[in-house]
Amino acid sequence: MIVRDFNKIVKTDPARVVSDAQWTSVRMLLADDGMGFSFHITTLQAGSEHTFEYKNHFESVYCMQGKGSITDLSTGETHQITPGVMYALNLHDRHILRSEEELVMACCFNPPVTGTEVHREDGSYAAPDEG
Amino acid sequence: MIVRDFNKIVKTDPARVVSDAQWTSVRMLLADDGMGFSFHITTLQAGSEHTFEYKNHFESVYCMQGKGSITDLSTGETHQITPGVMYALNLHDRHILRSEEELVMACCFNPPVTGTEVHREDGSYAAPDEG
Repeated sequence: MIVRDFNKIVKTDPARVVSDAQWTSVRMLLADDGMGFSFHITTLQAGSEHTFEYKNHFESVYCMQGKGSITDLSTGETHQITPGVMYALNLHDRHILRSEEELVMACCFNPPVTGTEVHREDGSYAAPDEG
Repeated sequence: MIVRDFNKIVKTDPARVVSDAQWTSVRMLLADDGMGFSFHITTLQAGSEHTFEYKNHFESVYCMQGKGSITDLSTGETHQITPGVMYALNLHDRHILRSEEELVMACCFNPPVTGTEVHREDGSYAAPDEG
């Protein structure tokens, strides 16, 4: 059994806390935990906007706190995000995520993130075999 | 893209809301969503105690609200559960989950739950090929 505490990780385990432009992701579970998925708590700063496209991953995102919206760039449709709303990128959907108030999200990735990825210019993470 | 709202599901989509002895699980994502994992928001009543053993699944559980504890029945060790604590059953660990205050948990399962499982007497879910 693995037991980890978000509140301890943010204070004592910087290797699990990854930040990029106006977002921070705390990696609660990564590929080497052997669960077959990874699990992250991601915080997006109020007023930020992000274009992502996980070409190599499925991701689900559950809003625990905050307010924002997501635009599906293939359809142009925009969905409001409030606590309790989940979106799942089952088609590797390219999208824009906007945070009106700081968003705190519980995120699952399949295949699991290894922990060394960064977002590439096209908004994706590399596939596991791309390093 | 799949978008679902926990608050709407609990009012309008009873097929996604599964209850058993003192717990309720809202299935936000199931096997047929094709994500390779399932994602559930599970509420455990205050004062309840549950013995589970997911022999056929990996499960991670992130505490969003409430207070309780988990005992690993293979080691006897007990861990406190408060918001921000996650446990992951990477060894299909048989365990007792206790809720002192109502617990609200974000749960990921691999392989994904199909939605028709119930807990069997041994605390497990059937494997996908056991129906």
